Amino acid sequence: MVAAAATTTATPHPLSALTADEVRQARDVILKLHPSSVIDFRVIYLLEPPKADVVRFLDAEHAGTLTADTPRPPRLAQLNYDVIGGSTGDAAVPTQYHESVVDLGAGKRISNELIDTKYHASLGIFEFDKVVKCVEESPEFKEKLKSVTLPDGFELVVEPWPYGGPDDADGQTRLFQALCFGRDARSGNPDANFYAYPLPFIPIVDARTMTLLRIDQPATGSHDDALVGVTNEVGVLDHCRPAEYVPELLPGGVRKDLKPLTVLQPEGPSFAISDANLVEWQKWRFRVTFNPREGAVLHDVRYDGRSVMYRISMSDMTVPYADPRPPFHRKQAFDFGDGGLGNCVNNLTLGCDCLGVIKYFDGLLTKPDGSPEPTKNVVCLHEQDNGINWKHTNWRTGRAVVTRRRELVVQYILTLANYEYVFAFILDQAAGITLEARATGIVSVVNMDAGKTAPWGNIVNPGTIAQNHQHIFCLRLDPAVDGHANTLVQEESLPAAVDPATNPNGNFYHVKTTTITESAGLDLDPFNNRVFKIQNKSKKNPVSGKPVGYKVAGPPTQLLLAAPGSIQSNRALFARHHLWVTKHKDDELYAGGRWTMMSRHEVGGVSDAAARKDKVDDEDIVLWSVFGLTHNPRVEDWPVMPVEMIQVHITPSDFFTGNPALDVPSNADIGSKLTDGGCCSAANGTNGTNGH
Amino acid sequence: MVAAAATTTATPHPLSALTADEVRQARDVILKLHPSSVIDFRVIYLLEPPKADVVRFLDAEHAGTLTADTPRPPRLAQLNYDVIGGSTGDAAVPTQYHESVVDLGAGKRISNELIDTKYHASLGIFEFDKVVKCVEESPEFKEKLKSVTLPDGFELVVEPWPYGGPDDADGQTRLFQALCFGRDARSGNPDANFYAYPLPFIPIVDARTMTLLRIDQPATGSHDDALVGVTNEVGVLDHCRPAEYVPELLPGGVRKDLKPLTVLQPEGPSFAISDANLVEWQKWRFRVTFNPREGAVLHDVRYDGRSVMYRISMSDMTVPYADPRPPFHRKQAFDFGDGGLGNCVNNLTLGCDCLGVIKYFDGLLTKPDGSPEPTKNVVCLHEQDNGINWKHTNWRTGRAVVTRRRELVVQYILTLANYEYVFAFILDQAAGITLEARATGIVSVVNMDAGKTAPWGNIVNPGTIAQNHQHIFCLRLDPAVDGHANTLVQEESLPAAVDPATNPNGNFYHVKTTTITESAGLDLDPFNNRVFKIQNKSKKNPVSGKPVGYKVAGPPTQLLLAAPGSIQSNRALFARHHLWVTKHKDDELYAGGRWTMMSRHEVGGVSDAAARKDKVDDEDIVLWSVFGLTHNPRVEDWPVMPVEMIQVHITPSDFFTGNPALDVPSNADIGSKLTDGGCCSAANGTNGTNGH
Repeated sequence: MVAAAATTTATPHPLSALTADEVRQARDVILKLHPSSVIDFRVIYLLEPPKADVVRFLDAEHAGTLTADTPRPPRLAQLNYDVIGGSTGDAAVPTQYHESVVDLGAGKRISNELIDTKYHASLGIFEFDKVVKCVEESPEFKEKLKSVTLPDGFELVVEPWPYGGPDDADGQTRLFQALCFGRDARSGNPDANFYAYPLPFIPIVDARTMTLLRIDQPATGSHDDALVGVTNEVGVLDHCRPAEYVPELLPGGVRKDLKPLTVLQPEGPSFAISDANLVEWQKWRFRVTFNPREGAVLHDVRYDGRSVMYRISMSDMTVPYADPRPPFHRKQAFDFGDGGLGNCVNNLTLGCDCLGVIKYFDGLLTKPDGSPEPTKNVVCLHEQDNGINWKHTNWRTGRAVVTRRRELVVQYILTLANYEYVFAFILDQAAGITLEARATGIVSVVNMDAGKTAPWGNIVNPGTIAQNHQHIFCLRLDPAVDGHANTLVQEESLPAAVDPATNPNGNFYHVKTTTITESAGLDLDPFNNRVFKIQNKSKKNPVSGKPVGYKVAGPPTQLLLAAPGSIQSNRALFARHHLWVTKHKDDELYAGGRWTMMSRHEVGGVSDAAARKDKVDDEDIVLWSVFGLTHNPRVEDWPVMPVEMIQVHITPSDFFTGNPALDVPSNADIGSKLTDGGCCSAANGTNGTNGH
Repeated sequence: MVAAAATTTATPHPLSALTADEVRQARDVILKLHPSSVIDFRVIYLLEPPKADVVRFLDAEHAGTLTADTPRPPRLAQLNYDVIGGSTGDAAVPTQYHESVVDLGAGKRISNELIDTKYHASLGIFEFDKVVKCVEESPEFKEKLKSVTLPDGFELVVEPWPYGGPDDADGQTRLFQALCFGRDARSGNPDANFYAYPLPFIPIVDARTMTLLRIDQPATGSHDDALVGVTNEVGVLDHCRPAEYVPELLPGGVRKDLKPLTVLQPEGPSFAISDANLVEWQKWRFRVTFNPREGAVLHDVRYDGRSVMYRISMSDMTVPYADPRPPFHRKQAFDFGDGGLGNCVNNLTLGCDCLGVIKYFDGLLTKPDGSPEPTKNVVCLHEQDNGINWKHTNWRTGRAVVTRRRELVVQYILTLANYEYVFAFILDQAAGITLEARATGIVSVVNMDAGKTAPWGNIVNPGTIAQNHQHIFCLRLDPAVDGHANTLVQEESLPAAVDPATNPNGNFYHVKTTTITESAGLDLDPFNNRVFKIQNKSKKNPVSGKPVGYKVAGPPTQLLLAAPGSIQSNRALFARHHLWVTKHKDDELYAGGRWTMMSRHEVGGVSDAAARKDKVDDEDIVLWSVFGLTHNPRVEDWPVMPVEMIQVHITPSDFFTGNPALDVPSNADIGSKLTDGGCCSAANGTNGTNGH
């Protein structure tokens, strides 16, 4: 393995995030180009160099031929920013949104796009604050609030949301919608759960002018009432009831019978970090970066010196809501594309978010003035035990050989308003990679008249209906299975008829393989055991004679339900197939398109990429695995829902010449104890025998 | 909650396994009835009392009205045994197989069935030993072995298998087949992996007479060769190569860079065991028993004082192989029904099979003379951490509340010849139950001519082909959702057309519920998000107004592929649907039928139960969840396969009035440490802050 020290610390590795100095350099290049304008920076982050350049560099790195003279890919910065008052600095001129690239080595801008006003940048947290202020201070909204009576001691809470897909009448201005709630302020606890008191007002704010455009007023009745029109009374929160989740406000307090369970790693972790972001663990080697659109990204993922993946990332997701009452059709979040995910990533807290020995990676966010803002602990790295790895007992000798399954977890968490997602890339000792998404947080609720129910959601608390919705995720895989020329092969296990010559007893089944030759959106078919393999056809497994490969097994979940041609569907064409295969193109990273915020249609997303009908047989291909949850809320999902987990499995398939975890030691764990099961005696175990 | 002490230790709880004394009492009753015969006992275990009697007792137990005068269900013992030489003791008379029930309180046999010779008892490990001896000592087999040349230093290994589905010509005698292998004895290590050297002989043994009936000789060629007929050479193992898995025989030894990861529970576990088998943990309360057909069984499963399940068990499984060459169609194991699973259950080893503080339950097996044979550690109980439980961050205040997900695991492991299964019932703090099955062990291989491949398997080692096969499991659920009168409801999320009145923007989807009124086999439909709920229609959730319920979500996997009408299919009719619902009937426990060993057709299994067309709406129902793995082996599955995991999720659905895990404390873990990621410094972390 090539020592990480082959790249000097002075020059960042091509797959390292921008340093704070680089961010400032890039900003300064832009500021010089707009000497007379006010610039609000939205994001500044590494634009990964062209893949051809990176691959050439990595080939030298892994061949051990890297020298100071090796050509290095350019260091590029992506800068997205608003020019306030246009390039003239005139306040009467509308804000212009730019997406530019700066070559840091050359010290100059190498591309600049003035983005058409029909497209919209991801939201910034500073916009949330402004929207809240705009609504709260609006005389029109104050007046509207008087139409209902808040209970004594209640305050208004304004919760900004992405506007979703605009209606035709909305034109091209930048809009936010806000959900409104009452908060019981009498406890003095700022974390009293306001979501239990939804108000039936949705103020709409123009973010360019920061003015309140109008106040939508959704219906609060059942399917027996009209979809539009007010049915609620003045005391719209009177039938609502508290639903607290912070421990100090729980009426019964917390349970007392949970005893500590601690993970100890007395010799430290089994992983090593070097060169800022190079991770080595159990024959795995990869780099991890963090960016504000995708969160954690794994690069140049290799096992035992062999290339597996060039890049792995969460590409996109959409959360459409199914309440048919206008304007709820606009409740459709794209947490990555809309969210400016970087702004929404949690600073992970030791002990509560993970156990054991934890390595945190920090990130850099961007302040409006373009200066880098360090953000702590946005990605964590830790090991976990996941039960038995493999086991066999020889019944003749009684000899059992059993190993534990150790996993390395790269995790990040995001919160967008009420809801949270936990994403983890999990690497295991059998050379498998799992992407796990956990959904938790507070389900989105709206006001409901007392005593009514409706088919588009569930009453989870008096006066609140949690609307049915879906979460459709897209994992992007840029494979490099023993090289970059890869092929996607579909394999199905199909019943075979009884035939005297080929299947005399009816037990045979046919395994049918189909090579995918053209970029396309494909679907799963679990009852035919349809699986997809990434193969390198130029390299055969020496044992089986089959091409070396990796299997990609996404869960066979329901796709987008919104009617084809509806705005929810048009915005998320990626969500209409389970697995897309496209030919690699630099910077084509986002399944739902380059701009999802207020999009009317997916543009530059995976559906467009697939529509090129590129040849994808024995090419540099990219896979997009789509999976989701149809979430018709249970009462148990309230007020904070227990995690719902979903996984994609990426496992070797004739890539190796045997079980890659065969050499994992079956050493006994010295910390395990026997117990007689008495709950009241502390440390009542005795050290057991150490097994084999 | 009723104190466990309400039942005295003198009288076992009706849901407690037989004591050793009870086993002996039951045996003596039978022996007295056969004074002049030789009796070989196969199994003696608790026959659970009639459900009506148990329910009456449990109602009193949970109402706290249990007294010494409360009528107790009878203690019943199931005894299955062979009468050698029939009841006369005459050796010329064929062995008779009896299944009897003894009432221990009455001290008498209350039922006795002399089983027709077309049905067969589960195998006993003593039969394996006899089959091996019979083959090894057979002059005919010795002669056959001379037709091939074993490499120097190799020995014969005979691996008995259930015979599978008999051919018509096989009649009704009790047969075993054996797979044969060579073992390289030169290392002197008795655990050298003989599976790498398969011999193309399948001796067939009559287990009644313990004579070798014939030697089947499967083909060893490809699909270009005939399905029958010998193509192999004299040196049939010459092209085979070693494939060791015991650490001391690994050519490269074990990996050295895995550092210890230990689970510590300094205050002991959070569970308590009382009254022999009553487990209490985190508002859960259940009893666990072990029996030789199903392994671990959970009884009377209650959460926070409310009834959820009367009984949960693994009911059956089948493993059909897809190699069309006779006699491989007979490779079809029913690991529960054939295996006499109790004989095959692993004694679990501290530290290797589980981490943390572990409670083991012992079991009782039966010696041929009917005496009880204690078997240690057949079921284990431990807690595990499974990541984040729920989390919400209030972005206004920055306050994050996050809890860890603690789980209680009831685990057992079985080995049948080459293969192992790990079964775990996992209870969580959000009132969910997960059944997890892990498949591991050594994939079944047969001899393959050098250089050939075939469509019915994969070459995993030179000279060995691992045949394609399926594992189809069946989990049996006897629900008691707030009582025993329950209803199965199917719920689907279906697209809805755009409609100005009901769906103006196309975002609505329809949730359709269908009550299942008649016993039936049902199928999953994941693309319509078909889910099944067990509801108690007489009890409504006070928040949502919907019936209280639990959701059963089995994975939507491929069903049995064998051609309908084939013997593999006829034997496993249960494997043709994903979810069966039947009306409860005492002792109807086994999906694949009462006798699977050498069965030609499923008899008394779930397909027969469903065919009664019982009313199942608002009745005492039983659910049978069928799921599986289609396993077309990878080279990576060799020589011992990394675990393949599959799960069924049973989660509350409007059973509670909120998240049942809301009161889990978010206490920080004191053992977690920060690391700089250096791999070489021991204990390089520092104690972090303790979070909230």
